[in-house]
Amino acid sequence: MINSDQQVSDKHRIKCSTAQLPIRLLLGPGPSNLHPRVNQQLITPMIGYTDVNYFKVMDETMELMRYLFQTDNHFTIPISGAGTAAMECCVSNLIEPEDVVVCLVAGYFSDRIHQQAVRYGSKIQRIEKKWGQYFSLEEIKEQLEKHRPKLLTMVFGETSTGIKQPMQGVGELCHQYDCLLMVDTVAALGGVPFFVDQWKVDACYTGGQKCLSGPPGISPLTFSPRACKKIAERKTPIANWYLDATLLAGYWCPEYNFATSQITSPQPLRRYHHTTPANLIYALRESILLVSEEGIENTWNRHRSAAHQLYQGLARIGLEPLISELNDKNDLGGRLYSLTTVKVPEGIDAKLFMKSLLDKHNIEIAGGIGELAGKIWRVGLMGFNANNSNVTLLLSTLEETLKDFKK
Amino acid sequence: MINSDQQVSDKHRIKCSTAQLPIRLLLGPGPSNLHPRVNQQLITPMIGYTDVNYFKVMDETMELMRYLFQTDNHFTIPISGAGTAAMECCVSNLIEPEDVVVCLVAGYFSDRIHQQAVRYGSKIQRIEKKWGQYFSLEEIKEQLEKHRPKLLTMVFGETSTGIKQPMQGVGELCHQYDCLLMVDTVAALGGVPFFVDQWKVDACYTGGQKCLSGPPGISPLTFSPRACKKIAERKTPIANWYLDATLLAGYWCPEYNFATSQITSPQPLRRYHHTTPANLIYALRESILLVSEEGIENTWNRHRSAAHQLYQGLARIGLEPLISELNDKNDLGGRLYSLTTVKVPEGIDAKLFMKSLLDKHNIEIAGGIGELAGKIWRVGLMGFNANNSNVTLLLSTLEETLKDFKK
Repeated sequence: MINSDQQVSDKHRIKCSTAQLPIRLLLGPGPSNLHPRVNQQLITPMIGYTDVNYFKVMDETMELMRYLFQTDNHFTIPISGAGTAAMECCVSNLIEPEDVVVCLVAGYFSDRIHQQAVRYGSKIQRIEKKWGQYFSLEEIKEQLEKHRPKLLTMVFGETSTGIKQPMQGVGELCHQYDCLLMVDTVAALGGVPFFVDQWKVDACYTGGQKCLSGPPGISPLTFSPRACKKIAERKTPIANWYLDATLLAGYWCPEYNFATSQITSPQPLRRYHHTTPANLIYALRESILLVSEEGIENTWNRHRSAAHQLYQGLARIGLEPLISELNDKNDLGGRLYSLTTVKVPEGIDAKLFMKSLLDKHNIEIAGGIGELAGKIWRVGLMGFNANNSNVTLLLSTLEETLKDFKK
Repeated sequence: MINSDQQVSDKHRIKCSTAQLPIRLLLGPGPSNLHPRVNQQLITPMIGYTDVNYFKVMDETMELMRYLFQTDNHFTIPISGAGTAAMECCVSNLIEPEDVVVCLVAGYFSDRIHQQAVRYGSKIQRIEKKWGQYFSLEEIKEQLEKHRPKLLTMVFGETSTGIKQPMQGVGELCHQYDCLLMVDTVAALGGVPFFVDQWKVDACYTGGQKCLSGPPGISPLTFSPRACKKIAERKTPIANWYLDATLLAGYWCPEYNFATSQITSPQPLRRYHHTTPANLIYALRESILLVSEEGIENTWNRHRSAAHQLYQGLARIGLEPLISELNDKNDLGGRLYSLTTVKVPEGIDAKLFMKSLLDKHNIEIAGGIGELAGKIWRVGLMGFNANNSNVTLLLSTLEETLKDFKK
């Protein structure tokens, strides 16, 4: 017997069977269903994190992410964690304690950026608007003029409200004011047109489980040369070790010089930082490969088509969208194709309604959060799930359930 | 056409096929091969993070982790990230800027704890010994007496050296000095006897991809009531948002009061913090379920049996272990069953040797890191991989490759 002085306790040795879970159609704000090819990649055989075959997977994933972000940024890597970790990677690397930062807040996730920012900096300006609104270029200019921040943070596709923040002119403005621009695209990237380079965005991230039909726990992130230069020139250490971009670069792209944005040749040895989640990276690679095969413009158009079908169907069955402004132009604000917010009709219990959809039809939609709790439903048409059949099914079950609830 | 002013770039739209990777036997320091049942769980259908079926998976995973850690700690959750993230969860929650901390350093990962600690505290004492050694109870007492720290950090199973830190009396000593005890068990838990409660450990964590035959990217962690009380009584905010234990508890165990360690009944609503990596949590649950079915004593014995077979075989083919002390008693120090370090014989190029094993036999072992680079090999027998057939195969290929290299 191996054990001598210690006694093994069986107190928590529960018996349970291998998990059996219901098959849901996930039409909430994410996670969405995994594409079958992505699922398949999750069980690709494990290999070591210094295996040359793994390095190839890493390099291809980085290149595919550049296509997804529409960027040439060399520092384009997946963060080993939730979208919230990618958010914190931006905040912790780009904010020094004495930096002035302007956080534009009009929803749950823009508020979260602010919550994180105040842990890393002491001069964080929170600029608030009502949930469901976006910030105009004039309003942004006013804040840049007033505070002269080193970093401006915003959310492009706000999952809590279904609004798309207009990007027209924002990047140029930040450049004029010598300010870095950080944009959250978790609920949008891959589903809604976004152009990191053309829009002069310095820090941007998304999550695997939204418009990529991939697993949660892996989050693409990109930093512009300007963002990397800021990191190289920091006067204070990066307060976060796991998300330290300079250490992450040592493993993902040791050939990249943050200060000069030059590429060293030949590539220096990759330095171990942490064991990356290989299964999730295999899956992420596959999910962006699907976008690359379809062509990202076609992917965007598919999301738009599904969203428009939804808008028309909702009008037909008498449900009203929260966001009235509908805008098909890429860089203008309005409804977010990937996530539609719908007002809960008077007299209907939002939660019971969702429970009925889930229990009777195995369809998940989500309720409102924060100040919109109980007032809206949130319908996600993301990635693989953004197709006309799903919308037809959803509209039909919504109509049926509405009738049940109005009886 | 969706696009108007912006032009989609196909510059990074690479064509590549679905990843085809070699099938390796992973006998390095982790990741190890996934158990087939664990692999299968990775593709269990995705469900939402507020689905009651998911809550059940979460609760079962927490209970199974308590068995794994041999603890009653209520705050026992999986961290959504690498073992290094779990490490930083301990460091960021348990260290306040003015706290005196003693970090015992005698290897790569104990050094990493120190690297992280200095980002969160200004009074971090680094106590060093030569790599491959452990700290005696007398040495630990001396440091506690001298520095009177609020936290002592150590590594139980050091992957870089193959040493097991003796735990006899350490917890009691820390209690006497009113000091919290943080122990890294990443390379050991599930493979080597460890008793969080009986050894009075306050913070402990491991990784999925070592002795659990699970995927990387999900990392079990437990905090004792003393550790939680410290967090509740912090005078300064937790500097890290993603790893903030109080926010994580809001989702995983909102019924737990950190200040009093009391359980509120009925359970309050779970508050969303981040989208947890469901696929990895399904897999983690299954990997600990395997331990629970086998019985953790049997799992430990299997690891010990494989290790002893390896020790004898290495001696037979003339390879010398780095760690001479062999100790089967649970709480005494010596060789770590799950990870054996072997001296590279004079005249053999360690890297070429490993490359030959990999290319000819698809077997991965690892080299030394840090000050042991080029001097040792590291052989992991972890989880599912810790069985006599694998050892027989490894010994036979080692012997053959040694002959090739001595020609």
